[in-house]
This record gives sequence, structure tokens and C-alpha cells, in this order.
Amino acid sequence: MRGAIIYGPRDVRFEERPAPKIVKPTDAIIRMTATCVCGSDLWDYRGINPLSEPKPMGHEYCGVVEEVGSAVKTVRPGQFVIGSFFASDNTCPNCQNGYQSSCQHREFVGDAQAPVLRVPLADGTLVATDDVPSEDLVPSLLTLSDVMATGWFAARAANVKPGATVAVVGDGAVGLLAVLSAKHMGAERIIAMSRHDSRQKLAREFGATHIVAERGDQAVARIKDLTNGIGADSVLECVGTQESMLQAIGCTRVGGFVSYVGVPHGVELDAGKLFFAHVHLHGGPAPARAFLPQLIDLVWNGKINPGKVFDLTLPLDKVSEGYRAMDERRAIKTLLRP
Amino acid sequence: MRGAIIYGPRDVRFEERPAPKIVKPTDAIIRMTATCVCGSDLWDYRGINPLSEPKPMGHEYCGVVEEVGSAVKTVRPGQFVIGSFFASDNTCPNCQNGYQSSCQHREFVGDAQAPVLRVPLADGTLVATDDVPSEDLVPSLLTLSDVMATGWFAARAANVKPGATVAVVGDGAVGLLAVLSAKHMGAERIIAMSRHDSRQKLAREFGATHIVAERGDQAVARIKDLTNGIGADSVLECVGTQESMLQAIGCTRVGGFVSYVGVPHGVELDAGKLFFAHVHLHGGPAPARAFLPQLIDLVWNGKINPGKVFDLTLPLDKVSEGYRAMDERRAIKTLLRP
Repeated sequence: MRGAIIYGPRDVRFEERPAPKIVKPTDAIIRMTATCVCGSDLWDYRGINPLSEPKPMGHEYCGVVEEVGSAVKTVRPGQFVIGSFFASDNTCPNCQNGYQSSCQHREFVGDAQAPVLRVPLADGTLVATDDVPSEDLVPSLLTLSDVMATGWFAARAANVKPGATVAVVGDGAVGLLAVLSAKHMGAERIIAMSRHDSRQKLAREFGATHIVAERGDQAVARIKDLTNGIGADSVLECVGTQESMLQAIGCTRVGGFVSYVGVPHGVELDAGKLFFAHVHLHGGPAPARAFLPQLIDLVWNGKINPGKVFDLTLPLDKVSEGYRAMDERRAIKTLLRP
Repeated sequence: MRGAIIYGPRDVRFEERPAPKIVKPTDAIIRMTATCVCGSDLWDYRGINPLSEPKPMGHEYCGVVEEVGSAVKTVRPGQFVIGSFFASDNTCPNCQNGYQSSCQHREFVGDAQAPVLRVPLADGTLVATDDVPSEDLVPSLLTLSDVMATGWFAARAANVKPGATVAVVGDGAVGLLAVLSAKHMGAERIIAMSRHDSRQKLAREFGATHIVAERGDQAVARIKDLTNGIGADSVLECVGTQESMLQAIGCTRVGGFVSYVGVPHGVELDAGKLFFAHVHLHGGPAPARAFLPQLIDLVWNGKINPGKVFDLTLPLDKVSEGYRAMDERRAIKTLLRP
């Protein structure tokens, strides 16, 4: 089998590696229908996350079950399934509290840019659809594995309510799907912060009512202007840098909610400033598993179409070009077909 | 009139200063029934907050209205009133959202260790009781001006729910009243973190079911032991140091809630660690005004007795000894009588 392996900065290769097989009785093997490149993969690709040795890549996946271990009870060969980027048992206290991405037995699924994938803890990780979906649904279903679930979590963690004023920091795929999520949750005004035409356009399509192109203090001033000096009720930070986090906190009204869903890179928060900003803060890796049943239903019934974030589709063996296009911001997100 | 003035570290004097008078039509003048020394006053007293010049002290107060400005409508001379340490208009959007301590027109009331006090924005700041209270209610009513309201906010901001497991970091008056608040909100297990006998005793009286005397990593380990390795649902940080904040975050379960109500002093938070801890964070200066009607009712009807935190009562002219006793931890909190 050939799959993606990263060797160092801007060096992703598609090469031979052992085909996965059942290791534990709770595993499942799935044949990939589609996989993709995540914005967070770029941290590795750009050399910002240090790499000690070559490693497989990819953590977003959907496909058809080929084989299950002897202990697997809820999925069976032939079913189309989607799973979270963190495998979870879905039974431990953290899972029961709705935080499957912090499952006590979680395992990161990190080798999904490949035609075949082993998924640990299959019963707690995978959700099967009623039927094998039509081709046009596949991109949207794929997003539920991470990027759409992460945008959804951003909106939930920032307490988006009907009628609210929401601001989204970051116009990557997560930020755009955070806009879609806020819209679905009934936000009245959704301010997308973006300076790129194509992303602004998609943000508007997903429900953004305002666009702010400024950054940093200017962005904060613009949001204050748009909210009578008060700030937004909910601000969704979908980048993970010091600048984006401070921008998000600065845009939030007193007593408002800031969520952050991009892995923070070198972000330090001054608790004294947070104290007097009087904001709520919540974030972390999105518990995609918790949202899968509801989000599958919304996609299946045509209520949301998050697959629109894919503006480049490549055969899996062109995975390296998929990274390059995103790195150079020629593509928002690359879908890969085995 | 004589009142408390701080000149420098451990130098609080009781000396002549001008009697306050109506400055704006929204002011009220009250004759103090009781005032007290706050844990946060010790930041000044210990020289941790730099002091550029001598300043009056005290921000907790209750008393009888002597005079009101021409624009004041809701309080009148002769009424017994309690007010928040931050004066607020109680009408701006921040106030309407329940954050009166971040009112757009807030003013800190900082000269309450005196027999007479000017309260700005009287209509939005003061709440009158139905009658002049009996003497035994005065200490508890006084706590509503800040310390009890702050403990209450700690419990609210940490989302304390019936049946929850709650941990409280800090055994000062705020921490002890956070225990009382959590108890009143229906917490099932309340773990007070304290290493002082007298404070442990009061914590138990207020509703603590467990005492943890350890600090730092040992404290975290003890809380994990007490919660099957999961952590507490709600952790109330009532100190304001780097160590206490990290201890609070470490004690919290995945998806749980951390509140912080002591002004943070030099506290820096690593957003990456917060991200993977998956906790909610909220805090800031307590909106005492928001809670006053409910808390007055609870005190008046004998449902709570927060005045028990006062274990030293002195005449106002002995204010300096009041500070000293708290600084040396001989007293939890000092009540001052003019």
C-alpha cells in the first residue's frame, strides 16, 4: 500500500508502507472513500512542529468497513463510516461528559492519507450512515471527521445563541465552517474576519453578514464600531496564534464568550487582562464523535453543505501537491481520492 | 472626619481628611454602619501593588443614607443601604448583561474605611433593605458589598450545579464564602483546600465535605484521588497567584469549569496547556450589584450567614491593627465599627 509520509519541511512523499491490519479486537479496517489535508497538517509541513523522524500523515477520513476485530459490535463490513480524528471508547467519564477527544483511552488517528486505515476503538469512534451515500454527499460527510466538527465546536464552546452577534477570527476551512455553524445555531450577525476575496465569498455563502478585513487592534476597533462599542457576544478563534487570540479576546463584549479550536502555538495569556476583560474562555480539540450523529443527519438531509470548503480535489497520489496548494494559499482545503 | 490612609507597606494611618459631600447629582452620602478590611487590601499593605502616593482605603460598606443628589430617585435619606465596591449605572449594556463591575461608567469606591462615604451613581449602585436591620444582621449584610458577592460569583462563574463536585482553592474569606455559595447552589461534594485549623473548621461549617491540606501537584493528585482520577466539575480559584491558578486548572475534570475571582498577580497561562486541559475559564471582578437583591433576601431570612467570616471586630480608629491581624493571619477578616 502507498500512503503519505512527511520527511521534513515541505517534503511529503507518497510511498510504500505496510498495509494496516487488525491489531486489537476493538479495531476496524476501513477502505478510504475520501481523505483530505488539514490546516493543522501545515504546522508539520511548514516545520513549525519539530519532526523527529518521518511519519505518516492524515487524520480526516470516511470509507467502507472492510474488516472488524472480534470485539467490535456496532459496525460491520460493508457499512459506510465516518470517525473522529481522535479514537475514543465513548464510555469513559470524559466521553460521557461530551469530551470524546479527551477520552481516557484516546488514540490519535494519524495515518489517514492512505487507501486503507486501521481505526482503534471502532465502536466508540466510528458512526455508520444508514446507507452508502451518493457521491455528492461524500465531501460534506468527510468534513465531519474534523474540520466541520471543529467549526461546530467553536460555535458551541462560544455559546452561540439565536439572535447573537458572532465574530470569527480566521478564514481557513475551520473559520469558514465556524461561520456555517453559527448561522445554523441562529446567530443574527456574523462577522467574518478575512482579507481574501474567495474566502470572503464563501463566508458570505455560509452566512456571514459582515466582513472585516483588518487585523489586530484595527480589527478590534472595527468590531467595536459594528457593535456600538460593546463587542461581540461570541468570538470564535480559529487560528491558534498569539495575535489571533488577543484579537479574539479584544473583540468580545464584557461577559461574552471566546472559543479557541486551533492548537495554540506559543500563545501566552495574561490572566490579569483576561480578568478585567471579563470574558469566558473555552476550547480544545473538538469532540467530533459527540457531534457526528447530528451532523450526519444535517448533511444527509441537505441542511448544511460543509463540503464546499474543498476547492481542490486531487488523486491521493498527488497528496504532495495538495499540501503545496494549501501552503501557498492557492487552495482553502484539498480533498484526496484514493 | 478621620479615615484610613495608606502611606506605604504596612503603614496604614487613621487621620483627618475632608468629609465627603455631594459632587454630582447622582451621588449619595452614607453614614457607615460597618466597613471592613479586604484580602485585596493586603496587596497594597504588603507593597505588592506599587503605591505612587498616600491614598484612602476600603471598598466594602453598608450604612444609612444621609443625603442624596438631585438626580437620585431610588434611595432616600434614612434608608439602610448596601452597595458594590464598583459603582455602576446599572443601565448600560454591560450592566444589562449582568456585569455591573464592568459598567461603562463604573467608578471604584475606594475610601470606605471612614465614617462617611460618597457613593457615585447611587441609583445603580446601592440597594436599600426594607427596614433598618437588627445589629446581628449587619456583618452578613456588609459581606454582600464584596466578599460574599465574590464567593457567589466564583460559584456562578464555575457553573456550580446541584450534585456537582466542587473544589475551592484558597481559604481566605472569599474562598470560605465560595464554599458557602457552592453549598447553597446544591453542590454534593465540596473540597476546601486549606491547611489552617480555624479555616478548615469554618469551611466545614459552611458546607465543605472534604479538606485537602496539600498544595500544588500534591493537591492535584489528592483531588484526582477523591474523584476516581477525573477531577472536580467546578474549581473556584480564590487567590490570584500563578501557583493557585495552575492548581485550580489541574484539579478540574476535562470539560469542567474554572473560575477565578482574585485579581491575578503576575499570572501567565499557557494556552496550549489550557487547550488540552479542555476546561472552561471565567472570572473577573464580581458583579456584586447583580447579586445584591437575592443575597440580601437570603441573609434577611436567615438562609445564609456569611458574616461568620469576621473573626475580629475593632473600632474604626484601630483600622491599622485590623490590617496587621490579617497580614499575620491572626484574623480571617476584620470588621470595623465607626
